[in-house]
Amino acid sequence: MRWVKDIERLLELVKDLIDKGFTLSEILDDALESCGRLGLSDEFCRRFLGLLDEELERIRGVEKAEDGLRLRMFAAKAMEMQKAGKEVFRLELGEPDFSAPERAVEAAVQALRKGLSKYTSSIGIRELREAIASKLSEKYGVDLKPDNVAITAGGTLATYAAIQVLTKPGDEVMVIDPAWPLYAHQARRFDRRVVKVETSFEDGWNPVEKIVEKMTKLTKMIILNYPNNPTGKVLDRRSFEKIIEIAEENNAWIMSDEVYSDFSYNRRAPSILEYGYERSYYLNSFSKTWGMTGFRVGYVVADPEIARKVSMAQSTAMTCIPEFVQRAALAALMDEESAKRNVELVGRRLKVLYEELSKSRLIDVKPPEGAMYIFPKIRIDGFDSWDFAPKLLEEKGVVVAPGACFGRYDDHLRISAVLDEDRLREAIKRLREGLEEYAELRGV
Amino acid sequence: MRWVKDIERLLELVKDLIDKGFTLSEILDDALESCGRLGLSDEFCRRFLGLLDEELERIRGVEKAEDGLRLRMFAAKAMEMQKAGKEVFRLELGEPDFSAPERAVEAAVQALRKGLSKYTSSIGIRELREAIASKLSEKYGVDLKPDNVAITAGGTLATYAAIQVLTKPGDEVMVIDPAWPLYAHQARRFDRRVVKVETSFEDGWNPVEKIVEKMTKLTKMIILNYPNNPTGKVLDRRSFEKIIEIAEENNAWIMSDEVYSDFSYNRRAPSILEYGYERSYYLNSFSKTWGMTGFRVGYVVADPEIARKVSMAQSTAMTCIPEFVQRAALAALMDEESAKRNVELVGRRLKVLYEELSKSRLIDVKPPEGAMYIFPKIRIDGFDSWDFAPKLLEEKGVVVAPGACFGRYDDHLRISAVLDEDRLREAIKRLREGLEEYAELRGV
Repeated sequence: MRWVKDIERLLELVKDLIDKGFTLSEILDDALESCGRLGLSDEFCRRFLGLLDEELERIRGVEKAEDGLRLRMFAAKAMEMQKAGKEVFRLELGEPDFSAPERAVEAAVQALRKGLSKYTSSIGIRELREAIASKLSEKYGVDLKPDNVAITAGGTLATYAAIQVLTKPGDEVMVIDPAWPLYAHQARRFDRRVVKVETSFEDGWNPVEKIVEKMTKLTKMIILNYPNNPTGKVLDRRSFEKIIEIAEENNAWIMSDEVYSDFSYNRRAPSILEYGYERSYYLNSFSKTWGMTGFRVGYVVADPEIARKVSMAQSTAMTCIPEFVQRAALAALMDEESAKRNVELVGRRLKVLYEELSKSRLIDVKPPEGAMYIFPKIRIDGFDSWDFAPKLLEEKGVVVAPGACFGRYDDHLRISAVLDEDRLREAIKRLREGLEEYAELRGV
Repeated sequence: MRWVKDIERLLELVKDLIDKGFTLSEILDDALESCGRLGLSDEFCRRFLGLLDEELERIRGVEKAEDGLRLRMFAAKAMEMQKAGKEVFRLELGEPDFSAPERAVEAAVQALRKGLSKYTSSIGIRELREAIASKLSEKYGVDLKPDNVAITAGGTLATYAAIQVLTKPGDEVMVIDPAWPLYAHQARRFDRRVVKVETSFEDGWNPVEKIVEKMTKLTKMIILNYPNNPTGKVLDRRSFEKIIEIAEENNAWIMSDEVYSDFSYNRRAPSILEYGYERSYYLNSFSKTWGMTGFRVGYVVADPEIARKVSMAQSTAMTCIPEFVQRAALAALMDEESAKRNVELVGRRLKVLYEELSKSRLIDVKPPEGAMYIFPKIRIDGFDSWDFAPKLLEEKGVVVAPGACFGRYDDHLRISAVLDEDRLREAIKRLREGLEEYAELRGV
């Protein structure tokens, strides 16, 4: 074949470069320049280098992080035991036990009966986008228009679209661990390179210094999620500002996942919307505040051009969001009473969790700040969260999420504030017992 | 910098290869062999060659096909005129004018009121998957299980997931034109290479010969859509078999989009499910048969492992489908009466369209076989569908989809059977007039 020699020589050079162990950020500018001179496109250049780098990582055998799949299978097992009649205390999922407000349900019912179930614009119905723009404008003292808003199939589609719209293959996406596993999973699905910033219990989960360390000119997006899942951390204003400064210096986007923004207990959580940063991408959802997880409705706030691109990405995947679902979301948005009640309920439960967890000598726990979770550290040498959690389910009927689901946090557990207080007390009592027995077995 | 020379030499070789104008299928085996020898992965090899090939196409300035975006904007304009009070005959969209059956609406209402709006399995609720498996098993005399079925956010997500699950970047996906523009758009979004097979009015829209011509060992998927949007063609059993044979010889998947399967008027449309072909991917939707476009619910039938992967892809994008939507789908599936009534209604309208279109000397039209569309050929030299359609809207208040939306079919128009018969007659009378005036203006 006439190409054998060309392609062989080419691939040998590729392998050579990989073997030398280049660093992407060192090589990029020169590569872009060479490509420019040769008439090859920037996009080709970036994707080519991205591919090389992935292959280098593969050859080096770099591990991929846990992707949450295991947690879903674990949760499914717990659900089966529950269905089989066993008493199970389920604290492993990010799903509130309260349901959609009645007003939201009735709005959906009316819309369905009116036949509001035709194709609709993939960016979302105007009334809902107006209501969101106006509510956020008031809350944060900014001036948002309906065109800044795109309605999405929950927070999930909002983050999924962000990766497609704001970054290109080969770009670096910075994820602050511990983190919701789907961020990294989505980024990898689109051939983005995930850079992990690992925060720690000891550092109070503050990421600022580590972001500075890990930023490169390839970093095109920093993902923030405060109030945080799983740690409950609420970022202080100063740190938020500092992160924006770092992003600005590097022309990086900030995707701020604020689905827990209402669940902030000591102060109002800062929002990316307050800083007027040009490369801001805000997202929120109706899932947590209003207990509407299964409606699949959330929203993005960004520059109108970005909002439009988000709606295009959504359209490619699923055409549009049902209008009756959007009508329910609109009714929920107006129902501040339900929101307030839900947030207070979770706050009381977080306090209970904190109290109960503090009783154990084997648990290090911080006072809760926000979100719906507590992420204590377990003081047992060599504690293995994926070894412990299934045992806890088996022996005590309590289900918690292993810390390893959220990064290299094998000595942590995530506990969700999704049961009523009495049941929470009982569950944590059992968890304490389980830990004592586990420690004893391991001779700690 | 230490890498300058390495990367420069490498990129020069890349450019050299591109300049020589290699063909991917010629080069692949050698490249895979070289990679194997060098310890580079097959995946790297395929994606690298895919990238090279795309860059080659870019440099050659290969056009990208119309992506339907323009049609959506055109439809939006028509809708605005309608809202402003002008009489507009809208025949441009693939959306029936009948609504969801009452039983489906009430099933959604009850589910909502029962609080069936929590996270649910991303593969779909068991009852619906069982009902689909059993209905299709009976219809086609096959043995499908619930595990063969994944519920999706409409047909759109079903095709979107197919591309991700069945093919890899750089693989060829074969699209038979004229086609729903989203197939190619979705494939390109995931860096698959789209190979177009162009069928014609004169050949009776039969793709078999052209598929044979265009198949290469890189073709990993053939997309079928019969009854067809936009032509209304129902493929005969012999042609279906022949395509499966070709696919089998090449180990290619067949994705069979059968969302119009109920709309087949002369004979039952063959289904991919009837042939026991190992690499089959069937999809259908509740949108057309039951007028449930805005519910966003459809389904895939495939090997259980593929169905599971589809649900994973869906989960990454949007977590799950609302349970109350799935309950509505289940009720619709049981409502065969509504399905029958809707199908008959569309059939009568297609006849009316055919009659009315046949009256013009400027229109070539085939008797309708299926789907909800007629795709006549316009006998005006140099007819430009995107020039004509906006004029027709402006001057006659009639909206049709330009043929150019579906590939290189500028001398065609797609007309949807989505208005009642009297209005259809009036609309086509106006279309005939519009064509006469257009022909006269152009001196034909």
